[in-house]
Amino acid sequence: MTRSENIVERILIDVGMVFDETLGIWSHTQTRIPVTVWWNEEKEQLVLLDQTKLPFETTIWTTTDWRKAAWEGIKGMVVRGSQAIGAAAGYAVLLAAKAILHSEQIVEFDKFLSACAEIRSTRPTASPLMWAVDKAVEAATEAWREGKSAEDIIEVIKKAADYFITADLILCQYLIKEGLQYIENQDVIMTHCNGGSLSSSYGGHALGMIEEAHAQGREILVVAKETRPRSQGFKLTTWELNRAGVPVVVVTDNMIGAAFKRYKVKKIILGVDRLARDGSVANKIGSADLARIAAHFDEISFYYATSYSTIDLNAVGKEIPIEERDQEEILYPYRLEAKDKKERSILSRNALDQWPPAHLIATSEVPETKKIGLFNPAFDITPPGLINLLLLDIGSYAPHQIRTLTESKIAELVTERLRAWGIQQELV
Amino acid sequence: MTRSENIVERILIDVGMVFDETLGIWSHTQTRIPVTVWWNEEKEQLVLLDQTKLPFETTIWTTTDWRKAAWEGIKGMVVRGSQAIGAAAGYAVLLAAKAILHSEQIVEFDKFLSACAEIRSTRPTASPLMWAVDKAVEAATEAWREGKSAEDIIEVIKKAADYFITADLILCQYLIKEGLQYIENQDVIMTHCNGGSLSSSYGGHALGMIEEAHAQGREILVVAKETRPRSQGFKLTTWELNRAGVPVVVVTDNMIGAAFKRYKVKKIILGVDRLARDGSVANKIGSADLARIAAHFDEISFYYATSYSTIDLNAVGKEIPIEERDQEEILYPYRLEAKDKKERSILSRNALDQWPPAHLIATSEVPETKKIGLFNPAFDITPPGLINLLLLDIGSYAPHQIRTLTESKIAELVTERLRAWGIQQELV
Repeated sequence: MTRSENIVERILIDVGMVFDETLGIWSHTQTRIPVTVWWNEEKEQLVLLDQTKLPFETTIWTTTDWRKAAWEGIKGMVVRGSQAIGAAAGYAVLLAAKAILHSEQIVEFDKFLSACAEIRSTRPTASPLMWAVDKAVEAATEAWREGKSAEDIIEVIKKAADYFITADLILCQYLIKEGLQYIENQDVIMTHCNGGSLSSSYGGHALGMIEEAHAQGREILVVAKETRPRSQGFKLTTWELNRAGVPVVVVTDNMIGAAFKRYKVKKIILGVDRLARDGSVANKIGSADLARIAAHFDEISFYYATSYSTIDLNAVGKEIPIEERDQEEILYPYRLEAKDKKERSILSRNALDQWPPAHLIATSEVPETKKIGLFNPAFDITPPGLINLLLLDIGSYAPHQIRTLTESKIAELVTERLRAWGIQQELV
Repeated sequence: MTRSENIVERILIDVGMVFDETLGIWSHTQTRIPVTVWWNEEKEQLVLLDQTKLPFETTIWTTTDWRKAAWEGIKGMVVRGSQAIGAAAGYAVLLAAKAILHSEQIVEFDKFLSACAEIRSTRPTASPLMWAVDKAVEAATEAWREGKSAEDIIEVIKKAADYFITADLILCQYLIKEGLQYIENQDVIMTHCNGGSLSSSYGGHALGMIEEAHAQGREILVVAKETRPRSQGFKLTTWELNRAGVPVVVVTDNMIGAAFKRYKVKKIILGVDRLARDGSVANKIGSADLARIAAHFDEISFYYATSYSTIDLNAVGKEIPIEERDQEEILYPYRLEAKDKKERSILSRNALDQWPPAHLIATSEVPETKKIGLFNPAFDITPPGLINLLLLDIGSYAPHQIRTLTESKIAELVTERLRAWGIQQELV
């Protein structure tokens, strides 16, 4: 495959992107939002938009090391958001294959499989990570069983990885089209965390459709929740919407009802990490609480917007594992504050160097006296009864309709959409 | 009045306090929690526990300047929490009187009145601030009309100020007693912001009763919400409870439902800034949302705990003015983060020095494109239908029973309680 025949490149161009030489990654001509994941063929390098530096700095992060891709890139949230993680995971598997597979020896393939298991383990809640790793491993295993060479197996994985991002780019366009039916001129829409272009390859989840509605001239105001502890709402959603020119107001996570009233919010649209068979949704911590508050306001509709790749027909909501993240995420701003106040002589020299002192912080278990506990779950589960409609790239569904979907029905809908864009692969 | 006859001192001793020489303020012998407000007779100085430095440093803040007391002390939140503000306001008025009143001239008394109006204006939502200033002004005006000397008028104000804190100290003991009827062994109680000893003179609101229940040997776990943007939950509630030895777990404001399930929360108890005639409650932003979420959980009871001084029989909930505070409160940690990341070379030298750049931040009005709006309301109103019970120092009431209270009925209940502690004043 020559560079001009590169399928990812073709689709990037088709969805409206050009290569941004300054940034070193593809970027949308209208919204100026970059793609979140890209494979640099020349350098054989995974390229991610560095979301840990946003909104302070817009820059890329690169690696040729699969472990770095898994632990710094995915676990460290350089790339985050269910669909974007899925796209990145394909290339992380590719990097592992390139590093490990050199011959046809079984021991090497086993090493490759355990590398894949390691990549798969970095984030436990979002569905597309597991999905992408499993599909790539499946394809590689089939090739290996057929006795193919290391080079050929790597080529199979490369095709799978290219497929993941290509399919995501295309299906996000369908999701946008679906969402545009529900977004009206003068809508005020609340969102939580960052379920948007930045959480997909490009154009996904809740914000992609809002950015497109804005580009088409509809006046939209977005109210973005801060989303502690990592503040994706404040840091990523504002950056993304501001870049696309969509007006946005930020509120902290305890100002939901107040913001509903002040800005006359009509709709809530969030992204999805995992959509279960029973129509319940795992998404960033605070999503379920937002739905519970919205249920007190009759005039507000609650939507989730996502790709079919977040559907997990084997899961029911209450059984989805919830990732608990490090307490440092919560403590970070307080340590900075203590340091800052000391520098500015607001705190005395005798004040604690950092707060809370390490001996005071317990785990998320019930703390003994004279310790402070911290609980940092990354996701929660929204019960289906609190969701008005699920906007998917394969159509809109009421929560109870998800159980009527089958793997083959989904595959059919996806294949149909990909074929319309000239994609014939069948890794659905 | 000699020092040994000082009424405030007597009551401080009666509620279990000793003077902490190191700290320079009275502190409880059992919980080690200091009184939040104190008048140093010798130095004629308002002494506040400096809540802006907690939890990093435990220290006092002093002033003899009424303007500093009003703008730095009250508006700047060195003292905060409805009842504590009321206690501090009395001494702020006293400082104003001492600075302004030297003779019996009308022009001086007018100046004093406008100083009082300035003090009264510093925080618009909490009821005890207005109440204390109005009562002090009323007493001073009566003395002035009677042709009393400046010295005598100042003495009248001093008595009023001493009364405010004395009455609050005593009534908090009644509130604790009331609350103890509803707190059981092994209770798990969620709270929001800091409605506790630190938001009263001592022992008040939600936490005073929990600290006493703990001291009596009941096992209680408190789940404290962070309370962005000023993080009173994380900074003050953890400090206060840890000092008193009560186990506490912190969660961010978007982890309510998750924490309910993880810790099996049974009760929610919050403080109050203003309790309206219709039984609705103005309290720290996020209180109403917490009540809305709790309404989805049948096993959880929602209480407000407060002093009669927060009752405003003239107010109905939806008409209570809501203070909007500076956007800097929300932005502060992000600016620190940008600086920190630059220092640690995570951000490049070319990254923005501070974020968000000033030109991007609009007001809380709907922002024009390419600006980010910020909305920072300090309070919200909880509808009476979401409240199970109001725990007051004058008894417990269902929200709809508040309208049955009258000024004279309240005065009777308060007077009866104060008399039992040997207080005969009638400034109710």
